[in-house]
Amino acid sequence: MSEFRRDRVSGRWVIIAPERAARPTDFPVERRYGVGGFCPFCEGHEDKTPPEVAALRNDSHQANRPGWRVRVVANRFPALRPDSPIEIVGDPACRGMTGFGVHEVIIESPRHILSLNEMDDAGVTDVLRIYQQRLASVRQDSRFLYGMIFKNVGSAAGATVEHSHSQMIGMPVVPEAVRTEVRHARQFNEAAGVCLFCNIIDREVAKGERVIHVGRHCIAIAPYASRFPFETWILPTRHMPHFDDHPAEALGDIALALRTVLNRLDQALETPAYNYLIHTSPLGEKSADYFHWHIEIIPCITKVAGFEWGTGCYINPVLPESAAAFLREASKLGRSASGGRVMSSS
Amino acid sequence: MSEFRRDRVSGRWVIIAPERAARPTDFPVERRYGVGGFCPFCEGHEDKTPPEVAALRNDSHQANRPGWRVRVVANRFPALRPDSPIEIVGDPACRGMTGFGVHEVIIESPRHILSLNEMDDAGVTDVLRIYQQRLASVRQDSRFLYGMIFKNVGSAAGATVEHSHSQMIGMPVVPEAVRTEVRHARQFNEAAGVCLFCNIIDREVAKGERVIHVGRHCIAIAPYASRFPFETWILPTRHMPHFDDHPAEALGDIALALRTVLNRLDQALETPAYNYLIHTSPLGEKSADYFHWHIEIIPCITKVAGFEWGTGCYINPVLPESAAAFLREASKLGRSASGGRVMSSS
Repeated sequence: MSEFRRDRVSGRWVIIAPERAARPTDFPVERRYGVGGFCPFCEGHEDKTPPEVAALRNDSHQANRPGWRVRVVANRFPALRPDSPIEIVGDPACRGMTGFGVHEVIIESPRHILSLNEMDDAGVTDVLRIYQQRLASVRQDSRFLYGMIFKNVGSAAGATVEHSHSQMIGMPVVPEAVRTEVRHARQFNEAAGVCLFCNIIDREVAKGERVIHVGRHCIAIAPYASRFPFETWILPTRHMPHFDDHPAEALGDIALALRTVLNRLDQALETPAYNYLIHTSPLGEKSADYFHWHIEIIPCITKVAGFEWGTGCYINPVLPESAAAFLREASKLGRSASGGRVMSSS
Repeated sequence: MSEFRRDRVSGRWVIIAPERAARPTDFPVERRYGVGGFCPFCEGHEDKTPPEVAALRNDSHQANRPGWRVRVVANRFPALRPDSPIEIVGDPACRGMTGFGVHEVIIESPRHILSLNEMDDAGVTDVLRIYQQRLASVRQDSRFLYGMIFKNVGSAAGATVEHSHSQMIGMPVVPEAVRTEVRHARQFNEAAGVCLFCNIIDREVAKGERVIHVGRHCIAIAPYASRFPFETWILPTRHMPHFDDHPAEALGDIALALRTVLNRLDQALETPAYNYLIHTSPLGEKSADYFHWHIEIIPCITKVAGFEWGTGCYINPVLPESAAAFLREASKLGRSASGGRVMSSS
């Protein structure tokens, strides 16, 4: 039997309809694959990208030369531009604003890899560290109200370059999805006196059935009202509104969780295309203490169709409890991203 | 230069970034195509579907036999079921509800066509008439709070059967996207004393630059803050909250507009996969007089990626004014869906 579930964070209804798929992986998965060809993101091709705005390097090599571990450049086709004014446009009824912002590309490895989990934990930790640095850079500038880190892997997930990379868009508005999460977090906090996300963590760990991975500093769960099959959230166990404030000593464990989840999705779904994104607190909102940053990972499986566009409500053919059990089991098969305590299947 | 635009109906921000595409059609379009094979929706195969719940027939032929023009059956893989109880499930913190509802398939033609615009105006009018009948059927039953009519054409748009069909899901909740539109319509009405949608129609017709088609009973526009390239809305000029209350004499003209827009999208984008959906007033809300039903048509072009999932904000590489001009011009090329006054390009 199907059921409606309401996500406490976004307020979204989903319809969990497991009868529409016989087994948890019984549907077409959009896969990622490499087609090769010249890659502007590979080490040695630094002159084929806009100049770097940041990098992590092993030694004192020069900027825009080989020798980097992670490299950040401006997006060649930016959605927003830092040289744009910030002005109202359009007539009063049609609210608009010039496209001020930044749009950066974070090249995660000098090697031509297709997904973040082809790196070791130290490599993924470097990526998280540079995410923090880029978010901190927009947070310093009061013109920005939000910085969104996101990642598209595979053309089905919207990637146009196959070399593993993430993006950051810094913008002068707080996007609607974040505003909604912040509102629900505030309402819960006012009513219950505790953080909504801390509450979710406690409940999920106690219950266990939707837990995929428990690390020292974070957990990975299939959210109760997952929009998509195998949607996974990584939540830091320490309450922290801003991702870039998270203590450095936890990043290695969070990197391990991210790599573990991506490895298990690869095993369960055979290298799916995927997106992930970091929800962090809006910038400059000191009052958003009740927010709790987290990572949302979305493998590309079910198509978004007319019903979803019209309702904002998603039909998910996989029970989140089944997806979590499947991903816990995945760790026992084939190549494993070991480390981190794995919950036993209940 | 890109710009932010905020949609007055949904509240959504979009980033219109025309620099990311050189021309309005300069991006990969997901196309629809037929692969053939046995089709359970074709005339003569009535025994291959669940029994019909409604049909339009030319004469007194029996149910579940050939002789129909439009036929409605239960979805074989329903997201929701009418025989489900309506009960709270899950624990208090995780709000859920059993999957009560209806999920119907509207088979639009006895012939094996792939898109609605392969029919004439009379055929499309039949489809609109049966949409009204199906919405009226759930509206009579107080357990339903919403009826969503939607259509997926092409596998990229989520269709699993290629024979042209629509679907209706009747549900015991008002979905979030509709609730949000209703709230904005109410707020505008309270502040301005007129209907938000009537106001949009007046402004767009006066301005002209985003108008695609003007009929006797409706207009088609590229919305100011289009999420997607070539997104098109059809708005009836007569204010009517519920689609199923719309007077029968206007349906032919609305069918013409729908067919005209789909024909032009086919010309401009070479038979794209697409979705459309009807936003009608929530059921049983007598106070929703300020709502104004409309059709939203979304061709499958840009991928929804990490940024959109994280922000709820869409990056659209085509200026809506350019899309509208392109679709107006499309009427002058090749096979034309004539009728309806076409605005001249400004």
